[in-house]
Amino acid sequence: MSGGSDDAAPGESASASRPLRTDLAPIAEAVAAADADAFVAVGDRFDDDLRYLTRFSGPDRAYALVVVPSDDRSDADAAGRAVCCVPSLFRERADREFVSSARTQSENGASDGDGEFHDGVVRAVRTERTGGHAGERAAAVVRDLLGDDGNEDSDGNEDGDRTLLVPPSIPHDAAVYLERAGNALASTDAVADARARKTAAEIDRLRRVQRAAATGMARAETVLAESAVDADGTGEPILRWNGEPLATERLRREVNAALAVSGVSDAGDTAIGVGRSAADRHYRGDEPIRPGETVLIGVSPRGPDGYRGNLTRTFVVDGDGGWERRASVAVESAREVALAEIEPGVPAKTVHGETAAELAAYGFDPNADEGEPGFLHDAGHGVGMSRHEAPSLSRAGELRTGHVVAVDPGVYDSAIGGVRLGDLAVVTEDGYELLAEYPLGMVPATRE
Amino acid sequence: MSGGSDDAAPGESASASRPLRTDLAPIAEAVAAADADAFVAVGDRFDDDLRYLTRFSGPDRAYALVVVPSDDRSDADAAGRAVCCVPSLFRERADREFVSSARTQSENGASDGDGEFHDGVVRAVRTERTGGHAGERAAAVVRDLLGDDGNEDSDGNEDGDRTLLVPPSIPHDAAVYLERAGNALASTDAVADARARKTAAEIDRLRRVQRAAATGMARAETVLAESAVDADGTGEPILRWNGEPLATERLRREVNAALAVSGVSDAGDTAIGVGRSAADRHYRGDEPIRPGETVLIGVSPRGPDGYRGNLTRTFVVDGDGGWERRASVAVESAREVALAEIEPGVPAKTVHGETAAELAAYGFDPNADEGEPGFLHDAGHGVGMSRHEAPSLSRAGELRTGHVVAVDPGVYDSAIGGVRLGDLAVVTEDGYELLAEYPLGMVPATRE
Repeated sequence: MSGGSDDAAPGESASASRPLRTDLAPIAEAVAAADADAFVAVGDRFDDDLRYLTRFSGPDRAYALVVVPSDDRSDADAAGRAVCCVPSLFRERADREFVSSARTQSENGASDGDGEFHDGVVRAVRTERTGGHAGERAAAVVRDLLGDDGNEDSDGNEDGDRTLLVPPSIPHDAAVYLERAGNALASTDAVADARARKTAAEIDRLRRVQRAAATGMARAETVLAESAVDADGTGEPILRWNGEPLATERLRREVNAALAVSGVSDAGDTAIGVGRSAADRHYRGDEPIRPGETVLIGVSPRGPDGYRGNLTRTFVVDGDGGWERRASVAVESAREVALAEIEPGVPAKTVHGETAAELAAYGFDPNADEGEPGFLHDAGHGVGMSRHEAPSLSRAGELRTGHVVAVDPGVYDSAIGGVRLGDLAVVTEDGYELLAEYPLGMVPATRE
Repeated sequence: MSGGSDDAAPGESASASRPLRTDLAPIAEAVAAADADAFVAVGDRFDDDLRYLTRFSGPDRAYALVVVPSDDRSDADAAGRAVCCVPSLFRERADREFVSSARTQSENGASDGDGEFHDGVVRAVRTERTGGHAGERAAAVVRDLLGDDGNEDSDGNEDGDRTLLVPPSIPHDAAVYLERAGNALASTDAVADARARKTAAEIDRLRRVQRAAATGMARAETVLAESAVDADGTGEPILRWNGEPLATERLRREVNAALAVSGVSDAGDTAIGVGRSAADRHYRGDEPIRPGETVLIGVSPRGPDGYRGNLTRTFVVDGDGGWERRASVAVESAREVALAEIEPGVPAKTVHGETAAELAAYGFDPNADEGEPGFLHDAGHGVGMSRHEAPSLSRAGELRTGHVVAVDPGVYDSAIGGVRLGDLAVVTEDGYELLAEYPLGMVPATRE
């Protein structure tokens, strides 16, 4: 196994640079703008909103974040206050990841211990022994931060005169705890909006993950290039690599090992389909790779800070220039058209519309239903902490600088195969920039 | 890179055996027992409850499952009906994973197309074009399955005379859709209870993942065994492997590549700490590995069906037999004591109690707070589709056959290091069985 000298490889360790930090001021401002009292999120370490907001790698069980805007009485010089409420075993890590890393850095990079936070939002960690629900603890933090000024109504319950903004998919049990403590809930898109526009540091992380994704793709392409056409026991043509039959699972393991060596996790999301299974866009099964069939490879690794890559290519070993050649020409052209649309101010759905029109011009149905030949999905979507996030390239809204989108046109025929090309692009002032370059050709070449 | 001939390796492809299938009859029974009308779950492919219930690998966006018990009017010969409501692009996959794989198999392994399901619960997939919320679609399925018999009350709203059981952490927006459609919600632990007791097929999957975890651990141990003690530029002792300094990130990449070659994903959960960072139980940073310090390695890979492994070992290169030797003796003894407690009918918290008592007998504080030296966490927890699930080894309830638990006693001193040993055990009629064996020694040996 190689990799021992790969410390400067694309997916290099997060510790090579300053930790990421999130501007919580827009969350505090959303609370104020909605005339609400606080923002509350509850979830575990798999909750991408919470990980984005806190940069805390978190426990497997639920924890909570509460953000309140400043009010004129108490926090005149701060934009707000944020409390992360975690199990006591996680105090040290939460202090490091949520609090220390958000402090203003001095010239020499040391953090300023005086409580100056880069976004003016004063952070604190509060711990609890195990037991009790994160929603219950969040309700207690809300009460502490805002004061216990709920009036009792005629039922003897606290009157719901506090309003909390919450992400739409906050766990229902947490929502019920918050409501029972006298809070009215209103959902907010503020987190999704904030996540959609990436900072330079986030783009740097996405670029690293995408470059690591390219090392995985290069491994796949190299294995395919090194494979020889042979026949199996029944005379059916197959590929052999290092003397053994090549199947999708074996190829996937090679790709995933290359991703690991580059410092990213395959996240269970390396999809490799062949021929008809290539038309099943997210195929993860095991089947022989045969010459002449489309080999559709999608890698979506997750980097150490949680950011996702997204790279898709399609190869054919010993193709006959039939359907897959026509599909490939159409998809390459659609990809160019889609990328050419990307610039700030463009309605996002224009990208899908133009992509679909280009594929239609090549004779592929852009409104195909599942099971019918054609273009079956959207032209693309945002990528960040989640593999799919805002903006969608087929919905309302304009592209803005800092949006990072996967552009991935593809055409499929469930009787033959599928061809897709997918890349990550960041919207820049001038248009776009690909986060990693990778060749488009269908004929596999040795890339390592 | 090796791995080309590893097709028979421990983490072999899921396709080597029949797909997993879940008995939904207990869910239907829980509905009937609670005098409720249906069970509803909503979530995306990261929702472990939904993946368990449906075996559908799912979309990144929310989808829904509705289960209704049979009633005497219509389903006299079925235990119930289950509808999985998915985006139209996922129809084929949902049909295959949720419906086809749950059909009764004939002698030759072919599925019986006549609608016979192994658990008597008749399954169907319903698709919708994109748009609309999964909670809204679930409400429509409930109405279709149960009939639109809601009475209007004086407000003109439907009367909430239907009761739905839901997992406690169902997304709040989905819960609100269901409530607005005239359903009262009650939370149920039926899914967690069902997940806790594994079938033979699930135990087989867990065993494979755990054996793959052992290949990752063997890689780490081999790299440590092959490393030489040297000095860095300042004269501080360090380890070198293949001529280059060995740090935690480099070792982690080696482990993760070995996991990938065995067919499992590291899931971002390979934790390697050294010395003081070993006391930070879930350390994922990068720092030099020095002789004489505890190297605490925890791997929790995820297999192709979603099941998790859990294996922890602690090594010391060139140790001086000080704290870590004493800690190691205590933890090995605590591990033996913990495992000896495991058998059906034993109160789960006994395992934690006996483990803590044994560590105390060796002079380690079993009630230490974060930052203090001693035993800081529980003696163990269930493992399955989630890295932490029922049963806890420190809470109420009895161990039962089919429970799979990580037993992982450890002691930590934040000024020195940490020692932990963790294994997966399945509760059997006679006691327990380890899902994979791995040596306990602290002195690294070549294992590949």
